[in-house]
Amino acid sequence: CSSSTPITATLFPGDGIGPEIAESVKKVFTTAGVPIEWEEHYVGTEIDPRTQSFLTWDSLESVRRNKVGLKGPMATPIGKGHRSLNLTLRKELNLYANVRPCYSLPGYKTRYDDVDLITIRENTEGEYSGLEHQVVRGVVESLKIITRQASLRVAEYAFLYAKTHGRERVSAIHKANIMQKTDGLFLKCCREVAEKYPEITYEEVVIDNCCMMLVKNPALFDVLVMPNLYGDIISDLCAGLVGGLGLTPSCNIGEDGVALAEAVHGSAPDIAGKNLANPTALLLSGVMMLRHLKLNEQAEQIHSAIINTIAEGKYRTADLGGSSTTTEFTKAICDHL
Amino acid sequence: CSSSTPITATLFPGDGIGPEIAESVKKVFTTAGVPIEWEEHYVGTEIDPRTQSFLTWDSLESVRRNKVGLKGPMATPIGKGHRSLNLTLRKELNLYANVRPCYSLPGYKTRYDDVDLITIRENTEGEYSGLEHQVVRGVVESLKIITRQASLRVAEYAFLYAKTHGRERVSAIHKANIMQKTDGLFLKCCREVAEKYPEITYEEVVIDNCCMMLVKNPALFDVLVMPNLYGDIISDLCAGLVGGLGLTPSCNIGEDGVALAEAVHGSAPDIAGKNLANPTALLLSGVMMLRHLKLNEQAEQIHSAIINTIAEGKYRTADLGGSSTTTEFTKAICDHL
Ligand SMILES: CC(C)[C@H](C(=O)O)[C@@H](O)C(=O)O
Ligand SMILES: CC(C)[C@H](C(=O)O)[C@@H](O)C(=O)O
Repeated sequence: CSSSTPITATLFPGDGIGPEIAESVKKVFTTAGVPIEWEEHYVGTEIDPRTQSFLTWDSLESVRRNKVGLKGPMATPIGKGHRSLNLTLRKELNLYANVRPCYSLPGYKTRYDDVDLITIRENTEGEYSGLEHQVVRGVVESLKIITRQASLRVAEYAFLYAKTHGRERVSAIHKANIMQKTDGLFLKCCREVAEKYPEITYEEVVIDNCCMMLVKNPALFDVLVMPNLYGDIISDLCAGLVGGLGLTPSCNIGEDGVALAEAVHGSAPDIAGKNLANPTALLLSGVMMLRHLKLNEQAEQIHSAIINTIAEGKYRTADLGGSSTTTEFTKAICDHL
Repeated sequence: CSSSTPITATLFPGDGIGPEIAESVKKVFTTAGVPIEWEEHYVGTEIDPRTQSFLTWDSLESVRRNKVGLKGPMATPIGKGHRSLNLTLRKELNLYANVRPCYSLPGYKTRYDDVDLITIRENTEGEYSGLEHQVVRGVVESLKIITRQASLRVAEYAFLYAKTHGRERVSAIHKANIMQKTDGLFLKCCREVAEKYPEITYEEVVIDNCCMMLVKNPALFDVLVMPNLYGDIISDLCAGLVGGLGLTPSCNIGEDGVALAEAVHGSAPDIAGKNLANPTALLLSGVMMLRHLKLNEQAEQIHSAIINTIAEGKYRTADLGGSSTTTEFTKAICDHL
């Protein structure tokens, strides 16, 4: 990709604060001279009460065609009988790995310093199969599905990630002492892949123990790879160590080089439209997208501008203890560029 | 129970460091004049390589008869195709609720102060059904089972616990946005029970979000009730906040007033027999057992002696940064009595 021909990327601003934080990304990217043209689509739950999960064929095709996109929050109504749009996108686009880096932001104090973790989550199966039924009244079951194919694929991704990012250790997180067959298969696949990467230390950690170790001493871990639900849990735990989902980026990886970066926090309907939202998670997700596109120079520039703005502490949104609006914070980042 | 007729309680010292820490409990209880006679049984995985899971009918009957017991660690070999003894005991004895208090120990510094949480875990079903199979080569599935009966039972226990222990809030932890039927049923049961306790605040928190909030601000929670696997994960996370499983007690509650208190840490084969083990978790579990028996005076005496010994910091085992042996630490506790 030369910087003269712009790259087309899909943008799903999403629900609630989504449009405001997407606006922030567009502004910052334009200021940094990122050669991206956005193809914007509405996907969400707010457009029309009749079509609570609004997702058109066009939106999916846009990601498939562009192979790269950025996604804001989409509300997941609990127990309304329709599937989360977040999941639908992951399944439809076959986004098999979800990468969530968690690192301490300089100048933003939490109980933990120097956190630097990467969780890589299998993103298509496991407890998210959607297969559930009532056996008899008062007895229900859900199926957790683990396949060799999906496990190998995410394990491959994790080890390749570790290797290409100079990481030293991959920990497979599991509960194979209880789910010997499902998590056992997952581990078996990780071991197979591990053998091809002798330079990377491989270990297996039971999920309960992993959570305990993470809160005691996150420095014990480096790259963590795991089935879907454990990834959901551990990545939020890790985000909590450095300040929460408002600060942590994520990127979903699919077959054929598709990447959909995503802010995984909620749509925060309470503050939507009030110019109060923190765009950091979506901005940092955008940076992941740029790295994926090998636009490394702009990625690093924008990354530094975000980090430095937060570190200086003069302009911060309310969730970080400041009083800046979304636009003020965004402007401060642009001024750093 | 008057203090003149001794109460018979079952004791399973378990594997590894189990016998040493059980010795510590016996010593402390004797010193405190606790009117308990121990009925000791070996249950574990170490006795004989031919019978890796050694559990006799007698041992089970002992708990059923005495209705009260204390249990040390039992090793769970991963992927050896036989079921964990810890689980077997829970299932055979129908120990439906697992209560794990987590509180900061004065004088033992972690990143968190004033943690005071109770996790109450459904202990018999969920992801621990043991139902797993291979569908075709490379595709395996596990069944998660949630029943109305078990969910109501543990919810009842949680609310009653909250009420009788002066707690104000019960949070049901779930992932019903994904497992709408199983976790949905669990929540439905919690809601039904919550209606009978209008004085207790009831809320529902998605497990990923719960983990993030716990590491950011554990004071947001009070009593947490949840399905089996989430309880396994969250209770270890909470233990991590205050220093780890070596410091946190637990008690399993069954039908007809059966209670089996249990140290949930591992059997630590590396330090077994070396007089290095920290008996705190088993001692505090013993205290839970005494409270269950309404031996409140001795329970509080022993509890204070343990807490004060750790707070003073002169005698601590290696895992807490000290250099005391198990027997020295135990003697220090006895001296406080
Ligand atoms: C919103 C929800 C369905 C989703 C998940 O469970 O994966 C979210 O928690 C996430 O981590 O992206
Ligand atoms: C050892 C293991 C089977 C057990 C469990 O998963 O319940 C343990 O982690 C626990 O929490 O008691």
